[in-house]
Amino acid sequence: MDLSLGFIPHVFMSINMEKLGRIAIIGGGSWATAIAKIVLSKKDKINWYMHREDRIIAFKEKGHNPAYLTNVNFDINKINFSNDINKTINTADTLIFVTPSPYLKDELKDLTVSLENKLIVTAIKGIIPGKNLIVSDFFSQVYHVSQPNIAVIGGPCHAEEVAKHKLSYLTVSCTDLEKAKSFSNLLTNDYVRVTTSKDVAGVEYGSVLKNVYAIAAGIYYGLGYGDNFHAVLLSNSILEMDKFLNKVYPLNRNVCESVYLGDLLVTGYSKYSRNRRFGHSIGQGHSVEGAQAEMGMVAEGYYGTKCIYEINLKQQVDMPILQAVYKVLYQNADPRSEMKLLTNRLK
Amino acid sequence: MDLSLGFIPHVFMSINMEKLGRIAIIGGGSWATAIAKIVLSKKDKINWYMHREDRIIAFKEKGHNPAYLTNVNFDINKINFSNDINKTINTADTLIFVTPSPYLKDELKDLTVSLENKLIVTAIKGIIPGKNLIVSDFFSQVYHVSQPNIAVIGGPCHAEEVAKHKLSYLTVSCTDLEKAKSFSNLLTNDYVRVTTSKDVAGVEYGSVLKNVYAIAAGIYYGLGYGDNFHAVLLSNSILEMDKFLNKVYPLNRNVCESVYLGDLLVTGYSKYSRNRRFGHSIGQGHSVEGAQAEMGMVAEGYYGTKCIYEINLKQQVDMPILQAVYKVLYQNADPRSEMKLLTNRLK
Repeated sequence: MDLSLGFIPHVFMSINMEKLGRIAIIGGGSWATAIAKIVLSKKDKINWYMHREDRIIAFKEKGHNPAYLTNVNFDINKINFSNDINKTINTADTLIFVTPSPYLKDELKDLTVSLENKLIVTAIKGIIPGKNLIVSDFFSQVYHVSQPNIAVIGGPCHAEEVAKHKLSYLTVSCTDLEKAKSFSNLLTNDYVRVTTSKDVAGVEYGSVLKNVYAIAAGIYYGLGYGDNFHAVLLSNSILEMDKFLNKVYPLNRNVCESVYLGDLLVTGYSKYSRNRRFGHSIGQGHSVEGAQAEMGMVAEGYYGTKCIYEINLKQQVDMPILQAVYKVLYQNADPRSEMKLLTNRLK
Repeated sequence: MDLSLGFIPHVFMSINMEKLGRIAIIGGGSWATAIAKIVLSKKDKINWYMHREDRIIAFKEKGHNPAYLTNVNFDINKINFSNDINKTINTADTLIFVTPSPYLKDELKDLTVSLENKLIVTAIKGIIPGKNLIVSDFFSQVYHVSQPNIAVIGGPCHAEEVAKHKLSYLTVSCTDLEKAKSFSNLLTNDYVRVTTSKDVAGVEYGSVLKNVYAIAAGIYYGLGYGDNFHAVLLSNSILEMDKFLNKVYPLNRNVCESVYLGDLLVTGYSKYSRNRRFGHSIGQGHSVEGAQAEMGMVAEGYYGTKCIYEINLKQQVDMPILQAVYKVLYQNADPRSEMKLLTNRLK
């Protein structure tokens, strides 16, 4: 029998992970697919809800998601697919939500299974439109899930790189730190490192705000501003984020940690970021509607901007970058003059 | 006569700038050329020292620097060129040093003119090799220039973008804040905004460290790590920088400000950064000497790494990123295993 110290963490990890029970993934996009792959390196079986039955059929046929991360192959026998959310959730103990935030309400509208005693994990990084709620608050206020049963997955993470096994770092936050640790063990493998924290709301608001700042970055690049300015904009963005988080959810956090700053950087510096592309299109002269039509979708940050703006009507944090983006997206302000005005507030 | 409030700052600015007297620029590279252009938008005449006489002759002939920023044209009548540093300095009151740091000692070896009563401004962002001194400490310790007469120009700034009038932000630091303000007025124009601070050593050490971190970033990309990891590395880099600055020069600073974080970002995310390219070459399998030979020059961060490492032997700040880069550059450590080991220290 191995009595070396090396053995103990392994046992501890197994016991910890047992508590999570059966895992269900809700969502069928690229991030959901990457998370499913990560979870399956530790679990023999998962439930997986996708809205579209045709996608499930094609997934089973091909052995991979037909629409996202198509190079990532799965052992289909390990997956209980369903397009009935009640079936998926009923037999699961830990639910990982990875739908686009605007669809979450709809996905849940036929829910009859109670969420009590389940661990709700959100990897959504968005706002519930119309409700001005981050996802953790949505589950706590609308579904009465208790705080210690809500966790969030954050961190700088292009799903495409996770699919290629490029080393990535995630942060799992939960007010019950033991649960955060159990769940972090589930995600940890050769190419994913996981940190834990208690900052559920801070991580969520940060991941919403970073999309707002990516829109700002896109607008500026679209207007012809360069890399020197971009570095200044992101420095001011993280300072603004810090102020907002300290007001809305005071906690001893350091926004330079990768779950805040890193997440902002990976989005703000990615030319593939939907939010940055949306902003870029506006900076180049498209209307907001035109930019959305061009992309064929609404960028998350579009909702995030309105939500944080409205929350901040009460909080009154000085947020010139957010305000400028709001004016451009929702008040028909001219991007060139509005963003130029904003340059006076940066340093 | 205009008695509106708008008139007062202009008078104030003029008076302030008068104190700076005649400006001299020492150095002939791209950043020196960009700074000369900026200064000439406020001053009718400058002195400009370049080491190579052939460059001065060609500059006068062509009306632009023959080697750097060749698209930027100058009115030659406004420039007193010289390759005699004593001539350049003798008739000047404010000296802006913009040579590569390894050459500064040599450029000054024939100096006979006293630096007393002159304002010394460094835009060098480097270390004096062999002396382990940042430039401000070099002038204060070796040339006995008093602290209030030493200023530093920092901030995220590719010279090429300044040359194209792309909006950029600089920070001028001086323990005498009035002098910092005077000098900042000199640099302020349509496309350059300037902030002031008292953090001379912090800005200098930060700008040296960012080169070390750019080398680390280059090594990792060379080894095949991706954008998710890069965002994590830079988040950990700014945290490490913060710890070092707080130990070596305690001051109430926020490293998220653009002069620290922005400078790190513009270098760390630039594929043209010499330091990142140097690291990339090592990550791809070249020896340190091979990488230097390939580039035809020594990247500033090569000296910076050794200097900070040696300073830190006394300070004992926990700096795993710096240490790993030092081991690769100076102790023949294998980049792949050394940088993999470092990933355990990041989060």
